Amino acid sequence: MTRLTAPLDAALSRQRIETPSWGYGNSGTRFKTFAAPGAARDVSEKIDDAAEVHRLTGIAPSVALHIPWDEVDDYAALGQYARERGVSIGAINPNVFQDDVYRLGSVTHPDEAVREQAVSHLLDCVEVMRQTGSRDLSLWFADGTNYAGQDDLRRRKHAMRAALKRVHDALPDGGRMLVEYKLFEPAFYATDLFDWGAAYAHCVAIGEKAQVLVDLGHHAQGVNIEQIVAFLLDEGRLGGFHFNARRYADDDLIVGTGNPFELFCIYAELVAAGHADDQITRRTAQNVAYMIDQSHNIEPKVEAMLQSVLNCQDAYAKALLIDRDALRAAQQAGDVLAAHRALTDAFRTDVRPLLAEWRDVHGLPSDPIAAHRASGYQATVARERGTAQGGGGYPVREKTLTR
Amino acid sequence: MTRLTAPLDAALSRQRIETPSWGYGNSGTRFKTFAAPGAARDVSEKIDDAAEVHRLTGIAPSVALHIPWDEVDDYAALGQYARERGVSIGAINPNVFQDDVYRLGSVTHPDEAVREQAVSHLLDCVEVMRQTGSRDLSLWFADGTNYAGQDDLRRRKHAMRAALKRVHDALPDGGRMLVEYKLFEPAFYATDLFDWGAAYAHCVAIGEKAQVLVDLGHHAQGVNIEQIVAFLLDEGRLGGFHFNARRYADDDLIVGTGNPFELFCIYAELVAAGHADDQITRRTAQNVAYMIDQSHNIEPKVEAMLQSVLNCQDAYAKALLIDRDALRAAQQAGDVLAAHRALTDAFRTDVRPLLAEWRDVHGLPSDPIAAHRASGYQATVARERGTAQGGGGYPVREKTLTR
Amino acid sequence: MTRLTAPLDAALSRQRIETPSWGYGNSGTRFKTFAAPGAARDVSEKIDDAAEVHRLTGIAPSVALHIPWDEVDDYAALGQYARERGVSIGAINPNVFQDDVYRLGSVTHPDEAVREQAVSHLLDCVEVMRQTGSRDLSLWFADGTNYAGQDDLRRRKHAMRAALKRVHDALPDGGRMLVEYKLFEPAFYATDLFDWGAAYAHCVAIGEKAQVLVDLGHHAQGVNIEQIVAFLLDEGRLGGFHFNARRYADDDLIVGTGNPFELFCIYAELVAAGHADDQITRRTAQNVAYMIDQSHNIEPKVEAMLQSVLNCQDAYAKALLIDRDALRAAQQAGDVLAAHRALTDAFRTDVRPLLAEWRDVHGLPSDPIAAHRASGYQATVARERGTAQGGGGYPVREKTLTR
Amino acid sequence: MTRLTAPLDAALSRQRIETPSWGYGNSGTRFKTFAAPGAARDVSEKIDDAAEVHRLTGIAPSVALHIPWDEVDDYAALGQYARERGVSIGAINPNVFQDDVYRLGSVTHPDEAVREQAVSHLLDCVEVMRQTGSRDLSLWFADGTNYAGQDDLRRRKHAMRAALKRVHDALPDGGRMLVEYKLFEPAFYATDLFDWGAAYAHCVAIGEKAQVLVDLGHHAQGVNIEQIVAFLLDEGRLGGFHFNARRYADDDLIVGTGNPFELFCIYAELVAAGHADDQITRRTAQNVAYMIDQSHNIEPKVEAMLQSVLNCQDAYAKALLIDRDALRAAQQAGDVLAAHRALTDAFRTDVRPLLAEWRDVHGLPSDPIAAHRASGYQATVARERGTAQGGGGYPVREKTLTR
Repeated sequence: MTRLTAPLDAALSRQRIETPSWGYGNSGTRFKTFAAPGAARDVSEKIDDAAEVHRLTGIAPSVALHIPWDEVDDYAALGQYARERGVSIGAINPNVFQDDVYRLGSVTHPDEAVREQAVSHLLDCVEVMRQTGSRDLSLWFADGTNYAGQDDLRRRKHAMRAALKRVHDALPDGGRMLVEYKLFEPAFYATDLFDWGAAYAHCVAIGEKAQVLVDLGHHAQGVNIEQIVAFLLDEGRLGGFHFNARRYADDDLIVGTGNPFELFCIYAELVAAGHADDQITRRTAQNVAYMIDQSHNIEPKVEAMLQSVLNCQDAYAKALLIDRDALRAAQQAGDVLAAHRALTDAFRTDVRPLLAEWRDVHGLPSDPIAAHRASGYQATVARERGTAQGGGGYPVREKTLTR
Repeated sequence: MTRLTAPLDAALSRQRIETPSWGYGNSGTRFKTFAAPGAARDVSEKIDDAAEVHRLTGIAPSVALHIPWDEVDDYAALGQYARERGVSIGAINPNVFQDDVYRLGSVTHPDEAVREQAVSHLLDCVEVMRQTGSRDLSLWFADGTNYAGQDDLRRRKHAMRAALKRVHDALPDGGRMLVEYKLFEPAFYATDLFDWGAAYAHCVAIGEKAQVLVDLGHHAQGVNIEQIVAFLLDEGRLGGFHFNARRYADDDLIVGTGNPFELFCIYAELVAAGHADDQITRRTAQNVAYMIDQSHNIEPKVEAMLQSVLNCQDAYAKALLIDRDALRAAQQAGDVLAAHRALTDAFRTDVRPLLAEWRDVHGLPSDPIAAHRASGYQATVARERGTAQGGGGYPVREKTLTR
Repeated sequence: MTRLTAPLDAALSRQRIETPSWGYGNSGTRFKTFAAPGAARDVSEKIDDAAEVHRLTGIAPSVALHIPWDEVDDYAALGQYARERGVSIGAINPNVFQDDVYRLGSVTHPDEAVREQAVSHLLDCVEVMRQTGSRDLSLWFADGTNYAGQDDLRRRKHAMRAALKRVHDALPDGGRMLVEYKLFEPAFYATDLFDWGAAYAHCVAIGEKAQVLVDLGHHAQGVNIEQIVAFLLDEGRLGGFHFNARRYADDDLIVGTGNPFELFCIYAELVAAGHADDQITRRTAQNVAYMIDQSHNIEPKVEAMLQSVLNCQDAYAKALLIDRDALRAAQQAGDVLAAHRALTDAFRTDVRPLLAEWRDVHGLPSDPIAAHRASGYQATVARERGTAQGGGGYPVREKTLTR
Repeated sequence: MTRLTAPLDAALSRQRIETPSWGYGNSGTRFKTFAAPGAARDVSEKIDDAAEVHRLTGIAPSVALHIPWDEVDDYAALGQYARERGVSIGAINPNVFQDDVYRLGSVTHPDEAVREQAVSHLLDCVEVMRQTGSRDLSLWFADGTNYAGQDDLRRRKHAMRAALKRVHDALPDGGRMLVEYKLFEPAFYATDLFDWGAAYAHCVAIGEKAQVLVDLGHHAQGVNIEQIVAFLLDEGRLGGFHFNARRYADDDLIVGTGNPFELFCIYAELVAAGHADDQITRRTAQNVAYMIDQSHNIEPKVEAMLQSVLNCQDAYAKALLIDRDALRAAQQAGDVLAAHRALTDAFRTDVRPLLAEWRDVHGLPSDPIAAHRASGYQATVARERGTAQGGGGYPVREKTLTR
């Protein structure tokens, strides 16, 4: 059985997974949002839930905010509220996709006034960064088109770059912007930031504080995500992750549930980059922001988030167990199958005992899910918060014929 | 230039495209529903809009209803309302995906009480069929699972079959049930009716009134839809279509906008089957229900529906122009490229003059889009109906921190 | 640690994986076939290699033949040769895709003479079945078209059914035909047996001896294979597997290397069906033929096959460990995440010690790969057989300009 | 009907499509290469065929070479041979994927000696460029891995960059290297140049003579190719195309046969970029190399190439007809459907009369396919050249059991 050595303990203790405030509230598909009993109704309840996840896992000490969903008058008070519960405010996520003016885009909209409104909101969020002490501004744009010809693709590219540049130059010292890309949805013909290459090209053109954010659900079928991760690490442009799982589109399921081996391979690249000879690669790996971004439609919110954090821990622990000397030797010898087995041997290891031991050592419940289920937390919030209306997507009942 | 011969006139005059009531109201993505000015607010306004589409195109004489979105106390009155506007009530579409009890499924839910509630609604819709004189009950189920192990796939299959059988046996004489399948969404691990094969196997097991419905957006990448159409026509089990366009997932864009050649190839199979030697194939082709099913997020509702109907007319007209003797001769000779060109020659033909002539002959505006734009219809309904709240998908603003 | 109980021992001892003769010879991509040192040059060497795989694993006791690649004058002698080496002859695989007459298809070719030639070969292979005592005739057709219009899809469907029917009716008592489907390749517009639904519909129409064969690499992106497996088991029509792994197309990599969790989920359905209440499902599960079908381009042949067999054993062992009572209870309670964890708990178990113990008990090397590497087998065959010319796909060097 | 105005005539007369020498010889899939009667057997016959395509179309005046398939001792003589037939030598395509040493890669191989051999061949091809006066070195690498862990992805990236840099710096004045990317095949886990972003990042790092080559068949499902084209044009890094069509993988079918609207949209971006305000974009568009890269398995070689060239002409002609003022006005007004129709109106136009007129004016046969069929060219080459052995992919007959 794998023992908790000092280096393993140190490595495991360094892991950080940020959970998103919106993961604790109701969310759903375009067809229906099922109201979850006890779903968080406001930012303080979201912080309460995030704190519970951190209390049980020990590796989820921060919570990402979404503006304006989590907008408050006093961010200092909000930060204080979080600290009192053992967590801190993480990345700031602007929202430039839910105002009616954004029907045809935000920063790439044909109308300059709309573009200005969007940039203005982004700059407001930079101000929220300052007030919350956040390092990262996490940018996702729904911008794109649904039909060939609908808009000029190069014009939109120019508008995107101009907006990113303005926000970049307003970032505080030590601040970063994480530029997220997505294959599609809600745009169905062309998305302005359509893949890592587009995000990367913009970041390089804009400046040092711009980094690419990889959302695991935002790729075409078959795309090798760990290779993109390795490429961006090597170029010094990997800023962070939005973790989730997908089989089809941007399914936003619990990370690691569809293909746990893929998550392991991603962590394997990250761990390897942390030991790279190249200093830029190493430093880039050390500064990666690990964030969950999921939309739980049918799962209990807090338990789903716990499971997500634990799945990341599982994958990371296995990646730490790779025998890197054996791997390198097999690779250099061109021994295809031995090199592959150097990976799979680590993956096949059952790290549950190791992680239970690490939790014991650090005063955490050895089985966080069981502890959560035993704690009564879910029943308590269900009772206290009730069940909000779900709403969502498609029309519900229209009024009946009256004429 | 292609002339409007009598056979062409007759064939074009036989075309029917049913538009969906829900296509005239607001709809959107999980992120946002943009409220469209003048979007229909109730079933009577939806019928008004459908009538406008029919008035301009002449080939959209019926409108599909969705229950309970379009539920009324008096369906006879609703039918009368429609007839007065020149259209009729088409397929009935039950909704077993928006009640909170359906979080884990409807007819395949683990709990028998929920399954009963779902079947009961389906049987109610059979009653609506009787009252509206509809031939087709159009069944789509959101049922499925998000995680491996979440439920027993074979148990769910049995439950699906039992429910379909009960509904089938309750259908009126001359009535049909159209069983729709879908690769995914809102289920992200396994959808109970996951492809045409699953729908087909159920239909064959259930009875003669069960037919498969093909939604163009519900297939995996690369799947050849016209081949499925040909296969089902040949087996006598193609009941109808939900027309739309997709590049990625179930994008629900205007049919024919992404790959017009694919839509043409589908119509080519349908026209060919209408001339098949085999009587079952021929009769099946004659009874296919052609229905639009789209979700217009950013387009004006009525114009988008007009465009959809016209794109189907364009594809059908081109399919009618295929030189079937030349095609057959080339196929039999194994002349790959000549056979392919027999199709593409028809596709490359500009049928706009032909269709304008057909419209002239039948007292329709020669350019329906231009006529619609000139009519002031959109401005009128925008003024009369106003702009409803969009709502939709992801949370909007939560209340701020109050503690 | 998981102990080898008697039921586990019995279940593990029942597992059978058939290896294919062609997996021991050279094969490659259209670009290049890299000649592997020691690759088997004829059917006797292939049997030698298969016997080595069985000697080391104990669960690969049969070898599939491909006709005419493995054609011999005296199949009785071939069977005797195999038995002397501890293995037997498995499924018979006809080849109707490599004669020049098959350019436009075999059993669905436009020309009746070609169709007859193809059927005649299939019937010859039925005769080989009799001579080798094989239960299964494994049918894969390259038939299809590359361009819309190239041929009549319904005519080809009729031709396919007629051919399958003739072969079916010629099968010996107790014999079966396994009908394999494939999304694409080498046909790039439409493949005549394009998915499980097409294969299933043909099998049902043809007769009881026709069963569907699932090749893991023959599906569109996102398709849920374990659900197809469950569906076919439930319908009593799952005949067998061609195991391999794929990320993109029909990559024909070592099974279980891309997404080991998927292979586990497939085995989970098979194990569950083996305990089904329904007798047909249970018997179908018991008669499934498990076969490898891979094309190793860069890997050592025998080691790659060993790894393939072991990956299947790993997945099967984990599937046996699923706590089915806990799973069913969670499913019935609608406890989404507990049900999922009932699966993942089994998957996360390290079954290497269990399998080593099982091998010890049965007199097998506890680490077959290590034993193979230590045995000198690869060096021996490389020396004895040499390295054949690879050939393959794209042109190599043409003669130079001579005019 | 659209008239051949002077600007249209000028634009159509500027179009150039380069055909590949290897498109005139036998090629196939991994399963089988069907020998085509009269397929070119050497580079001179390939040039004869290319000259025939140019003679009939007037827009295919150059032919790409593949080294060593087309290697000759005297390239000056080869150029002279080509000129005498009315064509010239185009891009030079090295081959670093068919030697046995390239089993694990060429320029990214783990072994430095292999990397050197590959770079050395590339440098030899630069020398061929000088001798043939070719502007473009067209680089495609089969380099990649089949299994996770097989090799170090970042090491391979460094090796790729180093090799590209060496070749870049050896290019003649005015020479360019076109860096092709590919999602997969023959590598099935990770391809070293896996998408446009990877190729782009390398090009930017390497120097001004490095440009990205877009092969239409080398993308994941759903990827918007015209957007990549627009992005690269805007960045000044689009070097050229490999035209073909695909539905599934890299099917290498005749360009424009699967989705002619997509090909039109790509040309629409190219035509638009040719009128861009930005000088770099404009100049980049003017220097794009348009090349066919297809693998005809079942089609007659010369006719297939003719069809390919004509399909490009069709798409380009339609793109020239776009009413760019109307398009821009609709885009700026946010009139989604009018903007889309500005594209589709051009696409729906039948340009066959226009192109026939253009051919008349320029002394070309008005129907090149019909002229080719009437010319007897195919029968002549079939008689003179005979039918070579096909060979290809999977094993054919092995020798029978001899022991």
